[in-house]
Amino acid sequence: MTELADRPAEAAAVPTRYRLVDCDVHPIMKGGLAELRPYLSRAEQRRLGLDERRNLTTTGHREAVSIPRNTVYVNQAGVLRDDARAEDGSAPGADPAHTARQLLDGNGIDRAVLIGGEVLGLGAMPDPDAAAIIAAAYNQWLADTWLSADERYRGTLVVGAQDPQQAAAEIRRRAGADERFVAVLLPLTDRLLGERHHYPIFEAAAELGLPITLHPNSGEGIFRTSPSMAAGTPTYYVEWHTGLSQVFQATLISLVCQGVFERFPGLKVVLTEGGLGWIPDVLWRLDKNVKGLRDEVPWIRRLPSEYVFDHVRFTTQPLPEPKRRSHLHVLCEIAQAERTLMFSSDYPHWDFDDPRHALTQLPAEIRSRVQSENAVETYGDRL
Amino acid sequence: MTELADRPAEAAAVPTRYRLVDCDVHPIMKGGLAELRPYLSRAEQRRLGLDERRNLTTTGHREAVSIPRNTVYVNQAGVLRDDARAEDGSAPGADPAHTARQLLDGNGIDRAVLIGGEVLGLGAMPDPDAAAIIAAAYNQWLADTWLSADERYRGTLVVGAQDPQQAAAEIRRRAGADERFVAVLLPLTDRLLGERHHYPIFEAAAELGLPITLHPNSGEGIFRTSPSMAAGTPTYYVEWHTGLSQVFQATLISLVCQGVFERFPGLKVVLTEGGLGWIPDVLWRLDKNVKGLRDEVPWIRRLPSEYVFDHVRFTTQPLPEPKRRSHLHVLCEIAQAERTLMFSSDYPHWDFDDPRHALTQLPAEIRSRVQSENAVETYGDRL
Repeated sequence: MTELADRPAEAAAVPTRYRLVDCDVHPIMKGGLAELRPYLSRAEQRRLGLDERRNLTTTGHREAVSIPRNTVYVNQAGVLRDDARAEDGSAPGADPAHTARQLLDGNGIDRAVLIGGEVLGLGAMPDPDAAAIIAAAYNQWLADTWLSADERYRGTLVVGAQDPQQAAAEIRRRAGADERFVAVLLPLTDRLLGERHHYPIFEAAAELGLPITLHPNSGEGIFRTSPSMAAGTPTYYVEWHTGLSQVFQATLISLVCQGVFERFPGLKVVLTEGGLGWIPDVLWRLDKNVKGLRDEVPWIRRLPSEYVFDHVRFTTQPLPEPKRRSHLHVLCEIAQAERTLMFSSDYPHWDFDDPRHALTQLPAEIRSRVQSENAVETYGDRL
Repeated sequence: MTELADRPAEAAAVPTRYRLVDCDVHPIMKGGLAELRPYLSRAEQRRLGLDERRNLTTTGHREAVSIPRNTVYVNQAGVLRDDARAEDGSAPGADPAHTARQLLDGNGIDRAVLIGGEVLGLGAMPDPDAAAIIAAAYNQWLADTWLSADERYRGTLVVGAQDPQQAAAEIRRRAGADERFVAVLLPLTDRLLGERHHYPIFEAAAELGLPITLHPNSGEGIFRTSPSMAAGTPTYYVEWHTGLSQVFQATLISLVCQGVFERFPGLKVVLTEGGLGWIPDVLWRLDKNVKGLRDEVPWIRRLPSEYVFDHVRFTTQPLPEPKRRSHLHVLCEIAQAERTLMFSSDYPHWDFDDPRHALTQLPAEIRSRVQSENAVETYGDRL
């Protein structure tokens, strides 16, 4: 029995403390990566081009580090909600107090799990040391700014998968020292998640009981080291955005087939913003194919879908919107949403899901599980 | 209104001629590509290394052309059904008379649409002229051997998408001269199907009323020019096989977003062996995203799912096998299977679907549509 499999019984005995937990909220940096200066040595600042001699607004040859993100597609709806802008005119989602008022007070959210907006593309950086330096500084910045601004915020610490040993050390150091970090963000790279490369990271996360969180990196298929899309490079943003769930399908297939959950029985994985509609397809194909081809992967001792139900969690946004609501309910049934699904808004992104709208789409009998109980089980006491 | 959209009314008036049509049957070449010699000039034979001076069994440096296919994964179940072998000991599925007895007589199949087993990976060949030469020779070989062996066989002519002008010419030449060709196989390349590169091919196919057929190429992600898998290279055959439906998801997204069905209202596309379980996810995501991002793709004038229902057809094998049959029925409802789904067995491949088993899984009220009526509407009078 896995840790997650053990939890429903516990949770049933202890009433849930929270009514609503939002598992995907993005803090934005008012001053961009220059805000990391206080958390970097002089040498690190110079290495990354973030030292004070640089004029970071220079638009000529690139002098300062940036983290890879979509630079080729234009989202005509705007990527950030314009009404998430604070009174000081800073970028939408960049003010912890404004976000607390608008998102948390406004929606009765008791806990918001923060996932760094600027570091989603960290996995596409070719230099493993630069990625590790930025991750460590970012985590400290998050603790000092957002986590200290409102007690309802919880942090997802970020690590670069490029160097798994450094990543594991950062997980142990940060999560050991600060209970407000409840999960580990592993920015997507072009390496499938089940590969052995990642095992030191899984070991550290499982040891501390922190789930691994995945999220689109906003540059899939664009950069040499970011995950590609199947069959070619999309021409338009709408194609890229519609197809990005494929990265999560491939990731889930990889985790199960490589036997990661047999090797790390305490490991939990949260797939954030990767969509939900594909879950039945992948579970059916996995269960059928592993039965037919089991000699190739003899370490798979259970039906693949059972590993998923026990170890993997999905967040609601972007919630599928079929014409008939009953189709969404069948999807919930197949995906065992009563234990696998957790609410997320994706604030302050353009396709934010309002909990008042999103939650009422779900079957009434699983709503409290999705609102908060599954999140409490997944993130544990740190939440 | 599109051609396909017009057809249901016609079909309802004319009783269907066939009880069961199999839309995915693979002829295998007894002697490999050397069987193409009679259809190649001396210069072409020398160019491809298929001339008689070559010992094609040589295992040293490669001297003769081969078509890219999976060479890195091992299917421990065997790729071909061993019981599809004829009495002469040739490869399974290589004898037209044996296939007619075993598959057609044995299952009451009135028409079998042949999709060349050896040419599925033609799109991964870097040389466009080599691909075009092989395609033309293969089509003539198919006409002279299989199509002439049993009147129940119908052909899918193959073209290389690498050179769309040569491909369009081959479609017009071949389909114009031989009514037994009912569709066009476009072997997958690393270029998404909606891109303008392919428009001459779509124009020719629509002009002749032949649907474009897609099929896994058996080497996705392995060759530089074959479609990649999202997020990385799978380690095991079971991962590759489970994830290959992503190529079809990406293809469908591309076709709709690029406005191909507005530009070619007579175009039909058949997605063979690409799975079915993902259809709801892609339709829901497309409909939702195109609403939100319509300024980017203003040529999309209808709900994306409507284009799919009118222009795209899916084949049954490999049929999803959820624990509850009602889940498959909901999938059929969402995918509008009563007009989009056509039966296929994938004979002689290892994961062949027996029509007696597969068809009984479907809702009784759509069975005759899936068995033959949708195929008759899609392939038209040539069937």
